[in-house]
Amino acid sequence: MASKVVPARGMRDILPVEKARREHALHVIREVYRSFGFDEVETPALEELSRLESGQGGENEKMLFKVLRRGLDPAQPLTPADAADLGLRFDLTVPLSRYVASNSAALRMPFKALQIGPVWRAERPQKGRYRQFVQCDIDIVGEPGTLAEVELVTATHTALTRLGLSGTTLRINDRGVLTGLLTGCGFAEADHGSVLITVDKADKVGLDGVLAELRAKEFAEDAVTALEERLTALLPLTDVRTPGVLEAALPEAVPAEVVARLRGIADALAVSAPDLDVRFDVTLVRGMGYYTGPIFEMSMPGSSSSIAGGGRYDTMVGRFSGRELPACGFSIGFERIIDEVVVPDPGAGAVALVHPAGAPAGELLRKQQELVAAGHRVALVKAAKRMQPLFDALVAEGYRQVVRARLGEDGRLEFGEPTPLSAS
Amino acid sequence: MASKVVPARGMRDILPVEKARREHALHVIREVYRSFGFDEVETPALEELSRLESGQGGENEKMLFKVLRRGLDPAQPLTPADAADLGLRFDLTVPLSRYVASNSAALRMPFKALQIGPVWRAERPQKGRYRQFVQCDIDIVGEPGTLAEVELVTATHTALTRLGLSGTTLRINDRGVLTGLLTGCGFAEADHGSVLITVDKADKVGLDGVLAELRAKEFAEDAVTALEERLTALLPLTDVRTPGVLEAALPEAVPAEVVARLRGIADALAVSAPDLDVRFDVTLVRGMGYYTGPIFEMSMPGSSSSIAGGGRYDTMVGRFSGRELPACGFSIGFERIIDEVVVPDPGAGAVALVHPAGAPAGELLRKQQELVAAGHRVALVKAAKRMQPLFDALVAEGYRQVVRARLGEDGRLEFGEPTPLSAS
Repeated sequence: MASKVVPARGMRDILPVEKARREHALHVIREVYRSFGFDEVETPALEELSRLESGQGGENEKMLFKVLRRGLDPAQPLTPADAADLGLRFDLTVPLSRYVASNSAALRMPFKALQIGPVWRAERPQKGRYRQFVQCDIDIVGEPGTLAEVELVTATHTALTRLGLSGTTLRINDRGVLTGLLTGCGFAEADHGSVLITVDKADKVGLDGVLAELRAKEFAEDAVTALEERLTALLPLTDVRTPGVLEAALPEAVPAEVVARLRGIADALAVSAPDLDVRFDVTLVRGMGYYTGPIFEMSMPGSSSSIAGGGRYDTMVGRFSGRELPACGFSIGFERIIDEVVVPDPGAGAVALVHPAGAPAGELLRKQQELVAAGHRVALVKAAKRMQPLFDALVAEGYRQVVRARLGEDGRLEFGEPTPLSAS
Repeated sequence: MASKVVPARGMRDILPVEKARREHALHVIREVYRSFGFDEVETPALEELSRLESGQGGENEKMLFKVLRRGLDPAQPLTPADAADLGLRFDLTVPLSRYVASNSAALRMPFKALQIGPVWRAERPQKGRYRQFVQCDIDIVGEPGTLAEVELVTATHTALTRLGLSGTTLRINDRGVLTGLLTGCGFAEADHGSVLITVDKADKVGLDGVLAELRAKEFAEDAVTALEERLTALLPLTDVRTPGVLEAALPEAVPAEVVARLRGIADALAVSAPDLDVRFDVTLVRGMGYYTGPIFEMSMPGSSSSIAGGGRYDTMVGRFSGRELPACGFSIGFERIIDEVVVPDPGAGAVALVHPAGAPAGELLRKQQELVAAGHRVALVKAAKRMQPLFDALVAEGYRQVVRARLGEDGRLEFGEPTPLSAS
């Protein structure tokens, strides 16, 4: 017996109904971002391993799919370290930074980029998580001001709304707030990274869990107590659009310009995205070490898990290109939203054209073309003894009408009027 | 000085104008095939190496990008043969065959599949050819009759026409014609493969070149002379829609059912695609050994190079799934057509919204949203001393109007009426 034929471990096939949903969502996202002046670019799936292993990718660098050098002597032993020269990208941020450095002469600044494509990570396979998945990033390169943050959020909010995802909340923070807060509480700068890794877990373990872990890490009790007071005062999430609340709540250790830029973003979003709920979340850290300013995440109503996230990273692009370039990005968690996307019902648009076996193909196809030209989607269906199972499948695929063809006495096809197609 | 930052060897970045062209073309192709009842599927980029090296892929198997096994001991030497377990797909046909075998329980037969995606081949890099490129395949699995061929050609012709590629020619042949012809001329069946490799070069080296190569291969002179007569009689390309010409020209060694199926396809296409020029091309071979029946290629007016090609392969899917399934496919040479695709002019749709530095972001974004909601594409452009170079770039990107914002005395933005944007 043949062994079971399945995709490679951790990979998946995407079936028609799901693929149609994904392509609909990607088309809407492309259209919205494009209308907001973002330019789509594409980078290759493979990048040089040295770029992917530059230390910018954090944990993701450990999950690389590495590509064997070509033209190796099959008999010549080699070590894994020598064997590979390329890798499959694990995100779209490293390739974008490389793209900006490669194509800087052709870019109109600020460069507003959209990039959509698959990325690969050799994670331990688990339910609902795959080793190939789609990312959908927008980035504004060359704009130092908060106009970039406001554009990214406004455009993304518009895209999500167009996809049927309404009532979203934006949680916002700033690396500058976190730094000021920790310094004010008495944490040494060298410890900030470790403290933030713990604070980042607040959405999973709660404030008590965070404090317990900080104490387990044996930070000075004075500092932990001071932080406890601050975090308690700053939680629950404050509606940041209320004038003055942010300014009153943040300790003096947070620089005034950091508070002012958060205020600026909040005030602008109150005008440009009035139905977006904007909250200050002092426990929002976002893992990537490359963020340098405002950071933000979006979530669905009634859920704390993020469906989009991003922030400002003013030093990363420069590491590739050798010249400093401010940058700010926002990434939709495509795999997290796709099940929630509302796909318009094809309605009466989809027609099953049922024909006898051996029907003249030319006439049949001409009729199909007529229906297509009139705006229908048309499936050719060969008549069978038992049609109902087939009709059930067609209804599940979104077909709503049936047109029947029969062979006339002159050997030509005759077509009936469309009638409703119904499941059993 | 930093070394030049470029994509990996043989790879490329796709810049915004080109990317917009590609996404427009893919969207049209998707819409047309979908309206003809094709269902889009997606398979992962990586497949198990054993499937990619099964011998079905011909020369392409030698151009595999192989992926290093994960979790190898970095110090443990290994040979290239042991080092890899996965590979990047080199076409979409092997993955489709695997897909059908993996998902047969969920497929409504005949299964009409559309698959669009990148494939990878480690070819020697050369101008205009890249190691990652897009393929765009439709396949009908489970339909033994020529209705499949007619559907594939009609739908593809409609898609190409919608992309602005008109006046195309379809060249058609049948593996059964080639087999009958060679047998009739006296070539032993074991030699057919070698003879066909030579005949396949006719579009490059001409009939004289083909005959010279056959003689150099030292086939029996009688057979070569007989073939010369047959090929001379069957060239130039015959309009196959003319009744009787095919039947009269083909030697008796070609089975009647092979002639009849070519006739059936030609007659149907005369009805379903009346503006498509359909020619019988006896020198059309198509390299892949897996074809079993009709084969076809499309070309642009005034060019012999193919922009789409396909044919029937009734045994390949069965090799994966263990049960015989007739199949027929057609692939658009996406990279060959993309420069010819006619992209609609955005016309007055694209607006440059010029604003002073430090303009209130909320008001600015609200105006942008208003223009987007009215159907415009809108780029935010910060005012600069010399606007004309920026305007030139915007015109080149398709922007046609400018709206100017200025700060009013009350500190609010005032917007002018749209005026034409012109290049210097």
